[in-house]
Amino acid sequence: MRGSTSLQVRLPALVLVSEVVMIVLYAVFVTYDDNANAKMQNNATNPMENSLYRDYPYFADVQVMIFVGFGCLLAFFRFYGFSGMVFNFLTATFAIQWAILVQGFFQFYYAGKIHLGVVNLLNAEFACAVVLISFGAVLGKTSPVQLLVMALLEIPLFSVTEWVVLKYIRITDAGGSILIHLFACYFGLGVTFMLYRPSLNKGHSKEMTSYQSDILSLMGTLFLWVFWPSFNSALTSKGDDQHRAVLHTFLGLSSSTITAFALSAVFNKRGKLTMADIQNVTLAGGVTVGASVDMMISPVAAYALGIMGCTACFFGYKYLTPFLANHMRIQDQCGIHNLHGLTGLISSLAGICAILLATEETYGPSMYQIFSHRAPPEGDPKLQELQRLIPGLKPGLGRTGQEQALYQVAAIFSTVAASAVGGLLTGWVMKLPFMAAPSDEDCFDDELFFDVPSDFARVEGLKTPTSFDEKIQMSSMNTTVET
Amino acid sequence: MRGSTSLQVRLPALVLVSEVVMIVLYAVFVTYDDNANAKMQNNATNPMENSLYRDYPYFADVQVMIFVGFGCLLAFFRFYGFSGMVFNFLTATFAIQWAILVQGFFQFYYAGKIHLGVVNLLNAEFACAVVLISFGAVLGKTSPVQLLVMALLEIPLFSVTEWVVLKYIRITDAGGSILIHLFACYFGLGVTFMLYRPSLNKGHSKEMTSYQSDILSLMGTLFLWVFWPSFNSALTSKGDDQHRAVLHTFLGLSSSTITAFALSAVFNKRGKLTMADIQNVTLAGGVTVGASVDMMISPVAAYALGIMGCTACFFGYKYLTPFLANHMRIQDQCGIHNLHGLTGLISSLAGICAILLATEETYGPSMYQIFSHRAPPEGDPKLQELQRLIPGLKPGLGRTGQEQALYQVAAIFSTVAASAVGGLLTGWVMKLPFMAAPSDEDCFDDELFFDVPSDFARVEGLKTPTSFDEKIQMSSMNTTVET
Amino acid sequence: MRGSTSLQVRLPALVLVSEVVMIVLYAVFVTYDDNANAKMQNNATNPMENSLYRDYPYFADVQVMIFVGFGCLLAFFRFYGFSGMVFNFLTATFAIQWAILVQGFFQFYYAGKIHLGVVNLLNAEFACAVVLISFGAVLGKTSPVQLLVMALLEIPLFSVTEWVVLKYIRITDAGGSILIHLFACYFGLGVTFMLYRPSLNKGHSKEMTSYQSDILSLMGTLFLWVFWPSFNSALTSKGDDQHRAVLHTFLGLSSSTITAFALSAVFNKRGKLTMADIQNVTLAGGVTVGASVDMMISPVAAYALGIMGCTACFFGYKYLTPFLANHMRIQDQCGIHNLHGLTGLISSLAGICAILLATEETYGPSMYQIFSHRAPPEGDPKLQELQRLIPGLKPGLGRTGQEQALYQVAAIFSTVAASAVGGLLTGWVMKLPFMAAPSDEDCFDDELFFDVPSDFARVEGLKTPTSFDEKIQMSSMNTTVET
Repeated sequence: MRGSTSLQVRLPALVLVSEVVMIVLYAVFVTYDDNANAKMQNNATNPMENSLYRDYPYFADVQVMIFVGFGCLLAFFRFYGFSGMVFNFLTATFAIQWAILVQGFFQFYYAGKIHLGVVNLLNAEFACAVVLISFGAVLGKTSPVQLLVMALLEIPLFSVTEWVVLKYIRITDAGGSILIHLFACYFGLGVTFMLYRPSLNKGHSKEMTSYQSDILSLMGTLFLWVFWPSFNSALTSKGDDQHRAVLHTFLGLSSSTITAFALSAVFNKRGKLTMADIQNVTLAGGVTVGASVDMMISPVAAYALGIMGCTACFFGYKYLTPFLANHMRIQDQCGIHNLHGLTGLISSLAGICAILLATEETYGPSMYQIFSHRAPPEGDPKLQELQRLIPGLKPGLGRTGQEQALYQVAAIFSTVAASAVGGLLTGWVMKLPFMAAPSDEDCFDDELFFDVPSDFARVEGLKTPTSFDEKIQMSSMNTTVET
Repeated sequence: MRGSTSLQVRLPALVLVSEVVMIVLYAVFVTYDDNANAKMQNNATNPMENSLYRDYPYFADVQVMIFVGFGCLLAFFRFYGFSGMVFNFLTATFAIQWAILVQGFFQFYYAGKIHLGVVNLLNAEFACAVVLISFGAVLGKTSPVQLLVMALLEIPLFSVTEWVVLKYIRITDAGGSILIHLFACYFGLGVTFMLYRPSLNKGHSKEMTSYQSDILSLMGTLFLWVFWPSFNSALTSKGDDQHRAVLHTFLGLSSSTITAFALSAVFNKRGKLTMADIQNVTLAGGVTVGASVDMMISPVAAYALGIMGCTACFFGYKYLTPFLANHMRIQDQCGIHNLHGLTGLISSLAGICAILLATEETYGPSMYQIFSHRAPPEGDPKLQELQRLIPGLKPGLGRTGQEQALYQVAAIFSTVAASAVGGLLTGWVMKLPFMAAPSDEDCFDDELFFDVPSDFARVEGLKTPTSFDEKIQMSSMNTTVET
Repeated sequence: MRGSTSLQVRLPALVLVSEVVMIVLYAVFVTYDDNANAKMQNNATNPMENSLYRDYPYFADVQVMIFVGFGCLLAFFRFYGFSGMVFNFLTATFAIQWAILVQGFFQFYYAGKIHLGVVNLLNAEFACAVVLISFGAVLGKTSPVQLLVMALLEIPLFSVTEWVVLKYIRITDAGGSILIHLFACYFGLGVTFMLYRPSLNKGHSKEMTSYQSDILSLMGTLFLWVFWPSFNSALTSKGDDQHRAVLHTFLGLSSSTITAFALSAVFNKRGKLTMADIQNVTLAGGVTVGASVDMMISPVAAYALGIMGCTACFFGYKYLTPFLANHMRIQDQCGIHNLHGLTGLISSLAGICAILLATEETYGPSMYQIFSHRAPPEGDPKLQELQRLIPGLKPGLGRTGQEQALYQVAAIFSTVAASAVGGLLTGWVMKLPFMAAPSDEDCFDDELFFDVPSDFARVEGLKTPTSFDEKIQMSSMNTTVET
């Protein structure tokens, strides 16, 4: 039942239909938000106080993460570098323009219009990050058509979940550990469960890295690493909250990184370092600090969270990923369950602890800004008292710490459930015929979807020896290198 | 008539003379602008309101585009990666320091001095972008000496044109579609017309990419892509104008990118993707939104412009570039006429439409800030009325939309004419002897101007088989890959 | 006496001990600074005036320099790319978290706590840059264990020196030419003197670049180049001082770059360009403007400093580095004495000249802000007069220019002495057994500390020909390329 994998009709048709739909929806529904609307400017407007200057620096950093960081990181396969970078580029671009619309309806819709500013783009890039994380689970065995379909379905489900969790359950999750990382992870696992390919459990001849692809992937890691503080702090409150988010993210990544080196060496048979650990496990700390990133958890807690997340992530790669593949039909190609799932769970638990331990003694009155749902409700005399100290404080729900913790737990379960079910359904759709899914044999191979330059063949010569000379070369190689 | 291509005397002599001239000119003419002058600070100066903080973030982003983005993008040839990145580095550096002086005389000269601040560097980087775009037309067939001469001549001509168009014709062109992209394109075409090499129309054995060079070039594309909103918005008015410029650029690039994927697949014989399309055509939207980037064109218009620009650019690569090479003696190596010329023309037309359609109803009174030449002239009572609403409004020329549109048309024609003629003359100078121009055979080859590492030979072995074994390898390759 | 180089026990043990120590110290001593402390916010606090927004943009740029810029630059060896990038990553991360503590005790300690904000991270990244520069001297011949030990010892010595020089000698050195570049250089030379390996003076078969590694290294150079203005200006006073720092750094780099091209061509036997010059010598200007980067030295002086620094650096590489290796037992692998030592000395001298030439006529009253030690001491009536003009002016030491110049000289000598002695001692420690130091033969080889992908062998085939075919290939190569 090997179908055609030509993109000649499928991809353009899908893009064309999407563009027509988007043009109609953008034309009818999207207008400028007040900060981008010339008509809203008057002599009371100070141009330098435009929201652009608060949001754009973080947006620019996240752009580098999404397009360069993820792109390079996903290009770690030796014969799949084009696909890794290019499908990331396509999927990200498509996901963002689609998320602007879908999130727009939920979050930025009033007076019959979606109001567009840089903050919408920033939110859309977070939605896009969700899709790209899920993509990691199925890297190498999906066509660009399948990836666009995945983005098409994942973005609305994510936007609904985000809206329900933030508006109805009302949780605190500044770094997106629950909404971004857990959602993306379990959605991706759902998809890859449906796309299970038994033959790949035995390994695939092209499932390998090269010297250059490992370096490229590490560059991706480094770009993600250096800008992760921007990612985790982009959507916090301005001021001290954002300041703490930067500090915690840096500390978490930092301890996570040296821990990853230690674990990589200690569990390697010959006491050497493994590039895959350095490319992935070093980043675990960035996720693990997420849910409590803007809270007063103290610097040492961020440091410790980095170590914990890294350790869980490392052992996940070592034991859990093979187990899931062999016993649960879940082939998690990039190990997103380790880097986003386990760390996301730890982060969520840490967030709950931080909520339970938060006191006015530590936070001062601004506790009711950070944990906005704990602020007294409208009409409460305590609210007025607090508003004298913090003029902009909005009325909350008067929740206690314990209540808020329960809501966080509810949010975790709802998010995981929604994403897993959504992933299963999306995987089912992606398995439909006409999606140009690669055959098992053609997985992890750029040549399926790209015109490749002539030296690609030479590269290929290595693994599928055809001439006698090459066989000799191969054998001499195998004697000098044990991988 | 094959001359020497040694750089031993020529390049140092040119650099030395330039440096002596620059030192004299900088010493005599360049001083600090008020924001960088310690003497101008007093107790009324707030350090955080220094212009540095408004300009530097955009400057930093443009730096990455110029040096990393362009550098990688131009390194797409397999045997010309050193040259692409390094000549870009040299030419850019030289162009910027020269542009600081030349633009300085036209735009920042008063009280007998050029006043230097970061805004001058930003302007100079735009002038530098002009040179680098033109460089794209002659990539692979020019020596660094020729490139410096090109920068030496193009910068003054660009600065004069810019000054005449902005000061006398007075146009609106925030993203530089006319002044940057059209100028650079037609100048480059003029140069390449003069440097015509008939033998290269049959192709050149080294005119090919490699797996790594394609990835490197794509990284360049991604860096240009992520920071393009900064490029297009760097010189707009602050506030809502800049905000819109960011939004439109992002949307234009975004729609342009997915369109490029669709077109690449549909016009490929085997329904595969072509890296050259993804490296270049995806960026077309960034140019296309340029001329109207800060106007109230509505988000959907930016989206539609991206699709239009991308389509024109794609077909330009497919049909126009070969036509120009075969019938017009114009060998446009990187296809700058597609990515900057056609898109620049569409952008200019869109700008004119946006000017004609602009009303006070849409823009409010700030229309007279964006279209500053339409503001009432000094003394007009309407001006005073508007100045009550917008305190900083400067008197304009009282032009109507139609008048302004005609001036835009005049600017387009003047710019194209000036740049084409200037390009022809510059190409003539670059063809003079002693410019170390490479022979036809040595084009696209790093070895001509670089000490190359020992594995460069191995790479070369591939295309010029010398030993029997290599011939076998070659033939086995040709059977597996069709490029 | 060839010891084991397995990292299985050593590296994890060192990391584990460090982490335990850090957790204790962070727990006991580190708290948030006021800008990151929720409790310090009240209705008088404007979130947008948080110090985060002044420091974070520069921090983000420096992050890219440290992790991506240095990482790629140090990956220039053909068989040592993993090690260059990865050891840089490990060493940098470790150095920063350690520097946060050590510098914290000296600079940010009060009320029994180290107060942590983004400004501490920024300072720690500067300390980290010191370690990474020193690393350059011993690249290729050290284990990660040795590098961590180096960071462990260098950071405290640097922090003490910094504290003594800034608090007691009190110098002006905004770009860190003395404290960062001279310290790092002479420390590194001390270390490499102790780690002298006579056999490496004859060259090593793996001490070579490849086409890809040269390109990767150049990317590192470009990232350092574009963000160097942020590095040099990150710790200056805000406002015009920082503005000048950006301008001078750009001009210095710019003239340095074109000079490097000229010198590279003129001293190459065949008039070609040498990648090593372009990767390193181009950056000399950034260091050379350092000590006077925020002063009113005039733009032309920055331009001239770039040329001088570049020239010294170039001839250093050509003549001094071989001399040091052959006659002084100093094997300076990356030539840090040229790029940081010679340029640092020139910069220090230029700083002294700038101090001697500074007058109130040029600077206005803000001279006493830039040269804060020249401000009149507490109680001086001139101080009160100046404080009317510059409200925030702090009392100084009433030094004259000549006095300040002498203090600068004292600082230079103390820094060089402290760093050289410290480097020697540190080198002695690094030579102890159990540090997993590579044997001479295993230097410059990723395989010693990494699991390498299978194509690493193929790469290796080139230099240690084993089969007849490969020997033929080798010989045909040697005829076409002379390196």
